[in-house]
Parts: sequence; structure tokens; C-alpha cells
Amino acid sequence: MKANVTKKTLSEGLGLLERVIPSRSSNPLLTALKVEASEAGLTLSGTNLEIDLSCFVPAEVQSPQDFVVPAHLFAQIVRNLGGELVELELSGAELAVRAGGSDFKLQTGDLAAYPPLTFPTHADVSLDGGELARAFSSVRYAASNEAFQAVFRGIKLEHRAESARVVASDGYRVAIRDFPASGDGKNLIVPARSADELIRVLRDGEARFTYGDGQLSVTTDRVRMNLKLLDGDFPDYERVIPKDIKLQVTLPATALKEAVGRVAVLADKNANNRVEFLVSEGKLRLAAEGDYGRAQDTLDVVQGGSEPAMSLAFNARHVLDALGPIDGEAELLFSGSTSPAIFRASGGGGYMAVMVTLRV
Amino acid sequence: MKANVTKKTLSEGLGLLERVIPSRSSNPLLTALKVEASEAGLTLSGTNLEIDLSCFVPAEVQSPQDFVVPAHLFAQIVRNLGGELVELELSGAELAVRAGGSDFKLQTGDLAAYPPLTFPTHADVSLDGGELARAFSSVRYAASNEAFQAVFRGIKLEHRAESARVVASDGYRVAIRDFPASGDGKNLIVPARSADELIRVLRDGEARFTYGDGQLSVTTDRVRMNLKLLDGDFPDYERVIPKDIKLQVTLPATALKEAVGRVAVLADKNANNRVEFLVSEGKLRLAAEGDYGRAQDTLDVVQGGSEPAMSLAFNARHVLDALGPIDGEAELLFSGSTSPAIFRASGGGGYMAVMVTLRV
Repeated sequence: MKANVTKKTLSEGLGLLERVIPSRSSNPLLTALKVEASEAGLTLSGTNLEIDLSCFVPAEVQSPQDFVVPAHLFAQIVRNLGGELVELELSGAELAVRAGGSDFKLQTGDLAAYPPLTFPTHADVSLDGGELARAFSSVRYAASNEAFQAVFRGIKLEHRAESARVVASDGYRVAIRDFPASGDGKNLIVPARSADELIRVLRDGEARFTYGDGQLSVTTDRVRMNLKLLDGDFPDYERVIPKDIKLQVTLPATALKEAVGRVAVLADKNANNRVEFLVSEGKLRLAAEGDYGRAQDTLDVVQGGSEPAMSLAFNARHVLDALGPIDGEAELLFSGSTSPAIFRASGGGGYMAVMVTLRV
Repeated sequence: MKANVTKKTLSEGLGLLERVIPSRSSNPLLTALKVEASEAGLTLSGTNLEIDLSCFVPAEVQSPQDFVVPAHLFAQIVRNLGGELVELELSGAELAVRAGGSDFKLQTGDLAAYPPLTFPTHADVSLDGGELARAFSSVRYAASNEAFQAVFRGIKLEHRAESARVVASDGYRVAIRDFPASGDGKNLIVPARSADELIRVLRDGEARFTYGDGQLSVTTDRVRMNLKLLDGDFPDYERVIPKDIKLQVTLPATALKEAVGRVAVLADKNANNRVEFLVSEGKLRLAAEGDYGRAQDTLDVVQGGSEPAMSLAFNARHVLDALGPIDGEAELLFSGSTSPAIFRASGGGGYMAVMVTLRV
């Protein structure tokens, strides 16, 4: 096997695989990259048993032959090479990697022992990859990395008539994003850590879904991915979305982020980074208090709703997370001091955060 | 006390102090910042008992009064403020910090209990701050952070007739930088960690030295600093600088850094990241070998000296460190396979690295 490939495309492919393939494992086979050669190019693949990933890299190949190599070493070597073009040559159990004045000989692994990775060839439904990635990344923060209940470590994907919805929650807050989608897809829960990898590999353009047994496969023009799904019932989050909005304020999201960041410096870390929101007479006053002093910040807002004033308290971290995906104007919808509040982008956009208030 | 100060100058001053003042300490007094107010401005100072630092910030001050505040909280609050101008007002035990719509009240500390920091008013000798900072930062890598012998954790400063020299060593390598200086200064050893802070605060312009008892004070137009010095005899490093150069190569420093970085990927971490240097016929061949394969890189060099060929081995990390301060062409001077080698910038510049070779 002899292949000529540009350093840039090979590095990009290896960069995706490197994030999935573990650098250490009790099963050393899993640290390997499998390379399948055809005359059109090289198919790189790897797995961490949660995610299988495969990526095609166009190359000029003579006498195609498959092999496995240590993934991270190979990626590091390729990244450090000089020049634009890389030459790969397999002879016996050694892979030569050449470019400019460099000549590396890398030991290959046991191809026969490498676990078989299979990717589906048909598609059940198709979504836009860019929309899906943006939706997942908007709600990702609300999924827990540690929660005891597995569903809180996942992101739910729901298919509706003319749209799809992703939802994440850690039990204290819910993040939701709707986006345009058609087709009759299934509802499912993707582990948040797998969603992180999906966000990275998806680009604008078709993302084809294939449903398997406890598994979702996603195929784009560039990559193929199998994801293990989470089992279980996602909580009935619609129940906590307040319907009866009594007071509503609109203000620039950036100004609010900066002000919350400021007062949070003095907020008590042992009391949920508590920040009070006091709305009245077209002003939002933020206040925090801790061992070292008190902070107060006043912002002008456009105020609406039936109640003339309200006072609520939130965890400052959660407020900053919820505002993260909002650019431009933010709308805060309050239904009472002790009921959940909604933070969303003014004028829609499909994103919404629902947060519990701290006790006043 | 009431002061108006620009956010930018106050933040810059606090940024310097924040690096010296510990964020936690068994003695909470040490986490405080002392602010001395005069009609011309505010003098910020702090200490970690190794380094005392003081920095003047111009401000409009009414009814000057001194106070202490939690250093890191105060710095964080100021950094996060909106607007250009900050208003400080001391009333009782509270410092108000105001800007735009923000109003912070910070508890001040016990001024009387804060340890007295004294800075000298006369100067013994004067150096250029920029030259000194560049010299310290060129040799810093060769000082050890952990060595058992204290002198290996320091950087020696030597005064000569028309120049000064800084030297650092960890016993395996020596880094030296000479720079123009006049005046009759003392030789001394600055702890490398204190040199790091000096590098940060010094700029081009006069750095005035005052010698104290086991202490050096450095004064510039902006800052005053007291440094505890290291006691002890610095090793006789001149003994290891090879005099009898048998082979010499010149090549672009960047090409060599990149090639060493490349082959080092396969070098054995458990064998000192060993990289072999083989010089002959106008070529430098680098080779490394480890559990996963072999790497080789060939570079064109300008070769000189009485020996036609030589083979040596180095720790790749040490080679990369030694090349760090060299831009443009690098000169490698070899006196034999088992004698130390010199790496320096071609055409002088005052910097030189001396490295032991690994056994062939």
C-alpha cells in the first residue's frame, strides 16, 4: 500500500478521530486507528465503545491494503510534518510516513484483532446538520455531567410536525431549542458527551439518521457515526414551563451578562451564588451579598405585564448559562417570586431557558 | 477618602499586585492589598514574604486616607466594571466602588495589623530594565523549580567591566546571557520565581538597584520591589563551557526546532527523550527511536571545524529549551561526542546554552 495525501485533509480527519479514540485504555486495541484504503482514498475509523466514528480522506492510493496504527502518535506525527504532501507506505508490519526530509517508521497493530465497526447504508430520516449542531450546543450547558439519573446526562431530541426540538435539564433548569425539520423521526435521548462530538463533526448540509437497536447512526458527506442512546423516561419538562406571565422585561443580553458577572463576584459561593433580581419602574436592580461585602447594579429595561414590581433570586451561574445562547435583546418572563422564570431571545429564534428561583 | 481613577490604570496596577499577593494564606492578612492615598494618587502594595511589590496609580484624591482590602476580590470587581472611570469612597470600614450603574460595598481590613513594607529611597547602581528582563527570560528555563540545592532554583547576576551576565543551571545545562551594563554592582542570586515577577514588571528604562541585607530592591518609575536573595555558592559553570570546538554547524533555528519536535514524538520518554544528532557532509541527521517506531529527519547545514563527522545524543526537551531564545540562524558548537555542546545565536547577541550529551 502506498498513498499520497495532503497534510491538511489527513490532519483534519485525524483531529476528529483523536477526540473519540482514547489515548489510554485497559484494552490497548481501542487506542488504535483503523485505516481502510481504497483507490479513492483512506477511511479512518475508531471507537470508544460509546461512539464509533469514521471519516473519509481523499488520497491517491496504490495497492490498497488496510492497517491499524497507534492513533494519537500517528496524528501527532502528521501534525508536526513539514510540507504539504504526506507519503504513506506499508511494508510488512511497518508504516512509513514521509514528508520533506522526514522519514518515520511506525509499528502497525493487529488488524485481525481490531473490533469490527459497521455503519448503516440506508437512512430513515434526514435533518440539517448545522441546525442540529447549533441546537445541541445551545442546550448543552443544562445537561449534567454527573447526575445520578442517566436522563439528566442526556439531551432529548423530539420530532414534531414541522420542527424538531432538543431539550436538556439537570432538574434545576431546562434548556429548549426548536428548529425547522421535516420527516417522521423518532424521539430519543443522546448522551450529552456524545452530543459534544456530534456538534464538532456536523456542518451545514444533510445529516442522515438511521435508527438501530439502542443506537443512532448519523451520516454526512464526510463522516459516519454510531452513538449509543440513553434509555429511560425524560422528565415531563413542559409541566414546569410557566404559562401565566405576570411581569416581563426586555434588555440587551450583553449588558445583563456583564452586570450579573460583576455582582456575582461578591455573591456567596456557599449559597448558590445567589443574585437577587428586583424589577420596578423600568429598572432591573441586581443585588448580591457575601462575606466580603455587597454589590448592586442597576439596568434600564423595557417593562411589561400586569404586576408593577417583583423580586426574585437566582443562581448567578445558572443565569449566565441561560443567557449564553442569547445575542441581541433578552426577554425575561416572570410568573411569580417562587415560580420558574423564562429567559429567551427577544423575537423568538427557538431558544428558551426555564429556571427555578431560589427561595426569597 | 474619595478617589477618581481610570479603570485601565487601576486594573493594570492591580494585575501586577495580584500575581504577588497570595489568594489564600494561613495568614489572611497577606491576602490583602494595602492602598496608601495621597493627593497625587494611590500606592498599591502587597507581599508574599518573598517579594514585596508596590505600584503607583495616578488618581484624583480628596481627603487621603489609607486602607486595606481583599486584593483578589477588589481586582476582580474593578476588572468587571463597566465604563472608563472608577470612583472609590471610604466610609467607616466600607470601601464603595462605583462605576456606571454599579455600586459595590467592600469590607476593608485591619490597617494597623498589616505588616509594614519599606522600600529604599537611594540607589546603588542602575541597569536598563528591558535588557535585564530579556536576559532573565532567556535563561529562566534552565533554572530548576524543584532542585534540592537552592542555587539551582536561582538565577545568578554577575557584574563585569562593561557588561552584566545572568546565568541559570539545573546541573545538566547552563544558560547564559550577557548584556551591556555599567556601574559597580554586586554579584547575587535571585530566586527564579522572583525573577519571573521581575520579568513581568520591568520595562525599558531605568531599573535602580539597592542592596540590602540578603535582599535586593529594584525601583522603576512605576514600581518598587524588594526581593529576598538566595544564599550559597553558584557552581563554577565556566569550567563546563567547552573551549576546543572540533565541529560546528549553522542552520535556521526554526527548522531545527521543528525537526527536533517531530522526531521527539517517537523518542523514548523513559530514556531522556533521547535524540541523536549525526553530522557529516553538510547534513545534520536527527534520529529517535521508541516503543512504537523510529523517526529520522535530515537538514542541510553549513558545516565547519577540524572533524569531518560527529555523532552525539541529547535530551530533546533540553534541545528545544536551549533553542527557545534563538531567532534566525543557530550555531551548534561540538567538542566531542561525550563533551558538552554549545548552542548559540549565530552572530552573537550574548546568549549561549551549554548542554551535556547523553551517553552514545
